[in-house]
Amino acid sequence: MPSSLPGYRNFARQAKIDQSFLAIPDAKLAGEELKTLTAEPHIAASPEDYKTAEYVAGKFKAAGLETSIVPYKAWLNMPISVSVEAFGSNGAELMKGPVPEHVDDDPYQSDSRVTPAFNGSSPSGDVTAEVVYANYGRPEDFKKLTDMGIDVRGKIVLVRYGANFRGVKVYIAQQYGAAGVLIYSDPADDGYFRGDMYPHGPYRPATSVQRGAVQYLFKYPGDALTPGVASRPDLPASERLSPQNAPNLPKIPSEPLSYHDAAPILEHLTGPDVPHGWQGALPFTYHVGPGVKVHMVLKMDYKYRTIWDVIGRVKGTEFPDEWVIAGNHRDAWVYGAVDPNSGTAAMLEAVHGLGALLQQGWKPKRSILFCSWDAEEEGLIGSTEWAEDHAKELEHAVAYFNTDVGVAGPNFEAAAVPSLKEFIRNVTKEVPSPKGGTVYDAWKKSDENEEHHRSGNGSSTHSNNGAAAGAAGDVEVGDLGSGSDYTPFIQHLGVPSTDVGSSGPYGVYHSVFDDFAWFTLNADPTFVYEQEMARVFGLEVLHMADADVLPYDYVTYGKEIADYLDAAQKSAANNNVAGLDFSAAGAAVQQFIAAAGLVRQKQDHPGADMAAFNAKLRQVEGDFLSEQGLPNRPWYKHTIYAPGEYTGYAAVVIPGVNEAIDAKDSARAAAQLAVLTQAIQRATATLQAAAQ
Amino acid sequence: MPSSLPGYRNFARQAKIDQSFLAIPDAKLAGEELKTLTAEPHIAASPEDYKTAEYVAGKFKAAGLETSIVPYKAWLNMPISVSVEAFGSNGAELMKGPVPEHVDDDPYQSDSRVTPAFNGSSPSGDVTAEVVYANYGRPEDFKKLTDMGIDVRGKIVLVRYGANFRGVKVYIAQQYGAAGVLIYSDPADDGYFRGDMYPHGPYRPATSVQRGAVQYLFKYPGDALTPGVASRPDLPASERLSPQNAPNLPKIPSEPLSYHDAAPILEHLTGPDVPHGWQGALPFTYHVGPGVKVHMVLKMDYKYRTIWDVIGRVKGTEFPDEWVIAGNHRDAWVYGAVDPNSGTAAMLEAVHGLGALLQQGWKPKRSILFCSWDAEEEGLIGSTEWAEDHAKELEHAVAYFNTDVGVAGPNFEAAAVPSLKEFIRNVTKEVPSPKGGTVYDAWKKSDENEEHHRSGNGSSTHSNNGAAAGAAGDVEVGDLGSGSDYTPFIQHLGVPSTDVGSSGPYGVYHSVFDDFAWFTLNADPTFVYEQEMARVFGLEVLHMADADVLPYDYVTYGKEIADYLDAAQKSAANNNVAGLDFSAAGAAVQQFIAAAGLVRQKQDHPGADMAAFNAKLRQVEGDFLSEQGLPNRPWYKHTIYAPGEYTGYAAVVIPGVNEAIDAKDSARAAAQLAVLTQAIQRATATLQAAAQ
Repeated sequence: MPSSLPGYRNFARQAKIDQSFLAIPDAKLAGEELKTLTAEPHIAASPEDYKTAEYVAGKFKAAGLETSIVPYKAWLNMPISVSVEAFGSNGAELMKGPVPEHVDDDPYQSDSRVTPAFNGSSPSGDVTAEVVYANYGRPEDFKKLTDMGIDVRGKIVLVRYGANFRGVKVYIAQQYGAAGVLIYSDPADDGYFRGDMYPHGPYRPATSVQRGAVQYLFKYPGDALTPGVASRPDLPASERLSPQNAPNLPKIPSEPLSYHDAAPILEHLTGPDVPHGWQGALPFTYHVGPGVKVHMVLKMDYKYRTIWDVIGRVKGTEFPDEWVIAGNHRDAWVYGAVDPNSGTAAMLEAVHGLGALLQQGWKPKRSILFCSWDAEEEGLIGSTEWAEDHAKELEHAVAYFNTDVGVAGPNFEAAAVPSLKEFIRNVTKEVPSPKGGTVYDAWKKSDENEEHHRSGNGSSTHSNNGAAAGAAGDVEVGDLGSGSDYTPFIQHLGVPSTDVGSSGPYGVYHSVFDDFAWFTLNADPTFVYEQEMARVFGLEVLHMADADVLPYDYVTYGKEIADYLDAAQKSAANNNVAGLDFSAAGAAVQQFIAAAGLVRQKQDHPGADMAAFNAKLRQVEGDFLSEQGLPNRPWYKHTIYAPGEYTGYAAVVIPGVNEAIDAKDSARAAAQLAVLTQAIQRATATLQAAAQ
Repeated sequence: MPSSLPGYRNFARQAKIDQSFLAIPDAKLAGEELKTLTAEPHIAASPEDYKTAEYVAGKFKAAGLETSIVPYKAWLNMPISVSVEAFGSNGAELMKGPVPEHVDDDPYQSDSRVTPAFNGSSPSGDVTAEVVYANYGRPEDFKKLTDMGIDVRGKIVLVRYGANFRGVKVYIAQQYGAAGVLIYSDPADDGYFRGDMYPHGPYRPATSVQRGAVQYLFKYPGDALTPGVASRPDLPASERLSPQNAPNLPKIPSEPLSYHDAAPILEHLTGPDVPHGWQGALPFTYHVGPGVKVHMVLKMDYKYRTIWDVIGRVKGTEFPDEWVIAGNHRDAWVYGAVDPNSGTAAMLEAVHGLGALLQQGWKPKRSILFCSWDAEEEGLIGSTEWAEDHAKELEHAVAYFNTDVGVAGPNFEAAAVPSLKEFIRNVTKEVPSPKGGTVYDAWKKSDENEEHHRSGNGSSTHSNNGAAAGAAGDVEVGDLGSGSDYTPFIQHLGVPSTDVGSSGPYGVYHSVFDDFAWFTLNADPTFVYEQEMARVFGLEVLHMADADVLPYDYVTYGKEIADYLDAAQKSAANNNVAGLDFSAAGAAVQQFIAAAGLVRQKQDHPGADMAAFNAKLRQVEGDFLSEQGLPNRPWYKHTIYAPGEYTGYAAVVIPGVNEAIDAKDSARAAAQLAVLTQAIQRATATLQAAAQ
């Protein structure tokens, strides 16, 4: 337990509250909550999903939160039927699928409410075409095919999961003129090549499929038909886009496959050997094609469906307009034991702890909101619509704390805006780890351990994308990309955000096997990491709600931006993008750092009335937003962080500038550099005013 | 064609001879010779091996060489029977093998003279034991098992080919107390993971086995019972060791397996998941064991067997005692189309060209010897015994030129002592490449191409081991390690040596499928690379035989030694080997470089009588030998190059010093540094005398 922390005149008082809180979250209860939440498949907008909303609302109410279930109406697809057949060059049938997901011994797999595996946001389609294998479906993979003289126009592109967001694979395939996409899980990436398969271990078995949205979320997340607008049930149709005009909906059909179903296709592809690095772990030599024709028929039921966020509030006594928001999604592709309900159980136990404090008479200075989002899997819909609904109030929100995959294993991980990296490290120094010592100690140890398995599902984990700059000598807190519900808060509205979780070997992501049986065998048999995450998540909320001075660390933020500018300048040189003058931006960020240093002194020695100072501190993140947003994707307004247009989940830093450099567009890069410089200057002026 | 070359007063005269020579080697004839040589399995000491000796002798004689077939008597094993059975923990039989090597369509595979796959130098044995998987069987792999608490004493160690010489795998397993070793070919290393399998491509099919010697050749090569002594047929038994006292014979049985036979064993191993990097390309998760028992029974027929070198000579007119030796082995594990008879065919066409020159009345200044070695596969036996037989004459030999895998594909490669790296580059600038331009041009291009497949059979290729120091900006010529017949010449006797070949994807190494059918499908269908290698190999001989001044480049040699000393000094620091004073060695090598510079000036402006100068130049390499040899392996006398004790084929530079540092033995390192310093000082004194 630290004796002092930034933000507190008297941390001893807060430390007592923390101790009272930390005593409450309960491993056994978390396990029971997880079991209840994952008893049935509960895909967004289903009756079972509504049951989980009521369950969570009940828990919120029991803790003393003012609770409501908030519906939105979103344009969503559900599969009516899915068929994929493959034929060799002699016309012989090679496979007819998909086969249902099945292993020898899993108590949950046979529920009739399990939907066929499908891609959220895929259109219906009936395509027969030659197959081309395109590795991970990255820009460089499609370019390589072009260099080999292979045209994917009119073809069905077979790609493997990993290295980027699945929506990016479809996006690039569509740009190259493909007629359809099949996305399979190669055992090299999350199957037997990594370790034993479920039920013998945590990795993906042969028939297991990674479902998932292929929405172009790098354009905008949320309901496809209402970008920037809350899709309240009463929003008239005239204020919604028509589906064919929705920029974040793919135009070509796509379908996820198990390696059981993909192997016969891959094995019969002929043509050139694959380029170096494209071979996976299936027991034959991969080729790019031709040699196999696939007939894929996807019948999707698209309609407006109602989804349900659950919001629980405690009003702040001193600064009721300064919201501290903590959220986790509740909907799952099937059972979602890890993703997301390990996070939900942790959140419920954090709420449990908060309820105990409330019962003891404690009240927060700032308002606290716990949010159980719906339809995250289809494209961060519940969080995005609610954030769009409350954009005005959120201008004063002091933080959004996210957890999605709360517990997939024992390794704590975090991502945050730079201003909250020190904050999250400090929180973990107060929470005991099941491994002994504090969460911080264990985190540091696993960070230092080269053999630490960062994530079991290749590159497709939700959180902690990208390496953080400037964290030398301390545990790494990642940058916020996308793939979970912090996106509307930080990247659309400028609410300082964090994302926490606990990872481990996890090969059943988005499959039927992400269930309570898998969880108790592999992730956290005694739910002690659930308890840990409840404590971390809850302490984040408590610290932010009661701090005398908002504990943002803008010196680190400035240094990270300075690093980003240096890297972009080098990248411009490497890409032969001439005529860029980084000097104004460089000067701006140095002034930002200087002003942040003065502000930090004031933060460390707070006076009596910090209200106006705090308001200025909060405003800095908002200053980083640009009114016009990023080129071609105006919903993304943050000038420092965005999900990459060609990576999807992974963060791109100073995205306007870097993506223009990558595109070798010097005019756009110069314009975006000016936008960035102005944003830094706005933020600097706010810091300078705060330092007065 | 260069207009001048180091070593020639008048290169124009030599250039005309070169042109006459280059016109003769014939692609079609090389193909016919290769087909004849590989018509039957011709393992060393077999009647078919003798037939190939007679065939080669006939070609030598036809070219006008004074030719003899020289027999030696060596202690060799042949398999009587081989059996490997595996049982699961419940006693059920998992496999019973080995199965014969077989693919759907190969015309050579079914010959009754194909021996079962076996390891040369393995003892007989009958062992039943639990299996432990030990990855590549490197020191770090066995150490990892120890760290995991796994004891291999009394166990059968299952290792995969790659990363080191197979004899090293057995050597370390023996040191760790294993009862036996199974060595299999994982498809990750030379099978379907790399590319299409034979007959659809060049890589190793399921049943294909890599035979090979497990002789501890890093102790000494050649006949196991006569280290340092020629095993002439009349050498009395009293002057031969008894087999149980021969230090280069393994004490535990070992047997090579195909992945077809190894897979059921690996698949049923239980226990811990394998460490990172140990997983191969078979379609299941690898474990280290236990869970599988193997019963292996090897019955070997050990006896003295007669082998046959073929030696063809042309006496030199001016310096008959200065031998220029060119050699290639002839014996093969089975058919040996690539290894070694692609080299034999190239050598025969080089001899063909030489014969044409002789017919035109040309005579070499120095004596030329072409050598067709036998029993290389069992441990460089034919070359080693002959070299030991002629140790005295070889003190004046000016070069040994080797080719083993002459042609496995289109990528020229070379290894050499540093003094001959410039020489070999110059030779390749005169020879046209089938790709256009010169061999040098094509070599440079493929060297620059990152995607160039250096070798198809993982790390187990014979030649060109290790990266060369000091070749920045020019094509890489590797260092000489071991694994082919240059070893007795350079490392035992100090004859300056080179090794050349042409590589490509080659997954059938040491299997029945290394046959004429594979060769014409994959390596060189029109034998144009055979022609290229004949020209390169022949020009090496011609240039060395007729040079006015021996074209050794001692400046480069000195610089490389200086680099080795720098690296060793860093390695000593990293290994905390204190108390080593590199200053004397460093000073010695600087004096060497200075003297080499003066010598080079004299080489570049040769006077009329260079005999005494040439003799001094030749003596320098001999000065690098130490009388006592390396610690625990006195046969290896060269202080700059040796095969690594724990790598086998790969070169270890300044081996006495570096291996002592690796063993953290500072006393031994200091003593070896003194030995090395004295060697450099001897060589420097010789150079200084030459420069007078």
